[in-house]
Amino acid sequence: MKISCSKANLLAALNIVSKAVSTKTTMPILECILIDVYSDSIKMTANDLELGIETVLDGKVIEMGRIAIEAKIFNDIVRKLPDSEVIIESTPDYKTIIRCEKAKFTLSSKSGEDFTELPEIEKEKKITISQFTLKEVIRQTIFSISDNENNKLMTGELFEIKNGKLTVVSLDGHRISLRNINLKEGGDDVSVVVPGKTLGELYKIINGGVDDMVNIYFTDNHILFEFENTVVVSRLFEGEYYKIVNMLSMDYKIKVEVNNKELLDCIDRASLLIKESDKKPIIVSIKDDNNMYLKVDTFMGSMNEEIEIDKEGEEIIIGFNPKFVMDVLKVIDDEKITLYMKDAKSPCIIRDAEENYIYVVLPVNINAGAY
Amino acid sequence: MKISCSKANLLAALNIVSKAVSTKTTMPILECILIDVYSDSIKMTANDLELGIETVLDGKVIEMGRIAIEAKIFNDIVRKLPDSEVIIESTPDYKTIIRCEKAKFTLSSKSGEDFTELPEIEKEKKITISQFTLKEVIRQTIFSISDNENNKLMTGELFEIKNGKLTVVSLDGHRISLRNINLKEGGDDVSVVVPGKTLGELYKIINGGVDDMVNIYFTDNHILFEFENTVVVSRLFEGEYYKIVNMLSMDYKIKVEVNNKELLDCIDRASLLIKESDKKPIIVSIKDDNNMYLKVDTFMGSMNEEIEIDKEGEEIIIGFNPKFVMDVLKVIDDEKITLYMKDAKSPCIIRDAEENYIYVVLPVNINAGAY
Repeated sequence: MKISCSKANLLAALNIVSKAVSTKTTMPILECILIDVYSDSIKMTANDLELGIETVLDGKVIEMGRIAIEAKIFNDIVRKLPDSEVIIESTPDYKTIIRCEKAKFTLSSKSGEDFTELPEIEKEKKITISQFTLKEVIRQTIFSISDNENNKLMTGELFEIKNGKLTVVSLDGHRISLRNINLKEGGDDVSVVVPGKTLGELYKIINGGVDDMVNIYFTDNHILFEFENTVVVSRLFEGEYYKIVNMLSMDYKIKVEVNNKELLDCIDRASLLIKESDKKPIIVSIKDDNNMYLKVDTFMGSMNEEIEIDKEGEEIIIGFNPKFVMDVLKVIDDEKITLYMKDAKSPCIIRDAEENYIYVVLPVNINAGAY
Repeated sequence: MKISCSKANLLAALNIVSKAVSTKTTMPILECILIDVYSDSIKMTANDLELGIETVLDGKVIEMGRIAIEAKIFNDIVRKLPDSEVIIESTPDYKTIIRCEKAKFTLSSKSGEDFTELPEIEKEKKITISQFTLKEVIRQTIFSISDNENNKLMTGELFEIKNGKLTVVSLDGHRISLRNINLKEGGDDVSVVVPGKTLGELYKIINGGVDDMVNIYFTDNHILFEFENTVVVSRLFEGEYYKIVNMLSMDYKIKVEVNNKELLDCIDRASLLIKESDKKPIIVSIKDDNNMYLKVDTFMGSMNEEIEIDKEGEEIIIGFNPKFVMDVLKVIDDEKITLYMKDAKSPCIIRDAEENYIYVVLPVNINAGAY
């Protein structure tokens, strides 16, 4: 195998496939990146058996063949090469020689034949959305997956297609995030749970705008994302996702419209007085004088602030984990947001009129009498 | 005590004095910042008993008094306040109230009377240099102090004044860094060892240019830096610093001129193959063909590269810890540097013609025959 390419192209391809390199494994081949050179194309692949990524490297084929190079040192070396033409060559005894200007590296590598290829995916069920939309959807939901591996399904996100609409849901037992996207073409109904890790890595490598599309294919066990020169294949989680319909269709008694940034900044300041281990809530009082009064009281000190709101319905005093509210406010781009509440024990819902997004945050039980 | 000031001014002052706040202490008062309000000035002070910093806050005095506020939460809160006027007030029961727009924080604080004032320094022995020069001198020497607390003197830097010249030296047993600065005014002879921590913190808060001056005062036990509205006082280390004259006045047999950036980049790449624990050297061969051949060979792989040089004297093969050479090359701003060597076991000296800087790096013992 022998190829030449620019350092910039090589680095771009490495940045993409490296996201699927296994870091904790007893199988050294999973720590490698495969360079697979056909007659006229150079393919780079990484595969940790859950997630696999393949991309086409823009370069010149000099000699066909394949070699598996340990990803970390390969990445480190390419990053430090001069900004110039790079020549990569494999030897019959599985060494890789990397040349760039006067520098020459020789690395022990592995036979490309030992590398596990990506699974063959049947491209039947398909939707197409823009890279921009996919990236936004991930950003706006991934914060509320659980990191508790004992509850596998909660570490993933639901991708559901129904009536020409894609719904993406994440939840962790304290809150729910939901995004709806209208699809241009309907397609088949689908309901799968995609690992959070897959979506996290995908988020990092998608960089296209609203006119750059991603094809997403679904099978029973896999999801495949196809964009530009890159293919991302991931296993799906097995099992049925949680039913959340009842949580979303709540009757509300209080509707509050508030400036997103003002509320976010205020809670952000207040939360300085709350240590994670404290589990102290921020107390929110919504009054008939069209003010929201926020208050935190801990051993470190106290904080009070008020924000002007537009309110319909009763007065309420309700407590929240400030982080859960901030997580939601941070990902909503609207200047004004609307909160729907029923009482101090029922979830608070934040959603837009079109229900492009719906966020549910459970309140913290407070002794309302004390405030 | 009651003052008002802009958030920006408060933050600037906090950023300066916070460098002297103790983080590991059993004395809570050392974790505080003192606000001391006289008739017409607001002074902020932190003091960890080794290092003390005092700065004048640009603000309005409303009521005199003093209060000691826990530094971390004070910093956190100010950082998150709106960009607006801040009012800070102390209560008779040692609470601090911080107001900004609609936000109000109340913190328990400590009596200002419990705070340890900075020591009185006799301002007799003095030199004046520019902030730019002081910052550069610290940057160009601090990397080669030792972090081994068992050898206290090596964790500091020598400041020596003699014949109208300031010499700053650091060393850790493997290398020496030396900077000479000609003083405009002579002054008394001085030889003191300044703690590395003091210089590290000072480096972060000095931001002036070549026309902004620092007055430096020396006593037997303290050094004091005075610039703009700020005073930094530090204890000195006791004991006599190492004699290094013999190490610097070496006869050389080989003189090599090389492009600094080319050499740095090359060693940087090569060192990718060397793990810290390896202690593998980079082998440098200087040949009569006016090339420097660099080579690294480890279990991870090998690297070869050559660089054009101007050479006087014999050929040599010599090994270095790549980090020690890189540390020096990174802080020299000259495009070309000159190396002076004698043999594979003698230190390599890197210095400019005027001896504004002198760096000594000990070689690593290699079996020259093997290369």
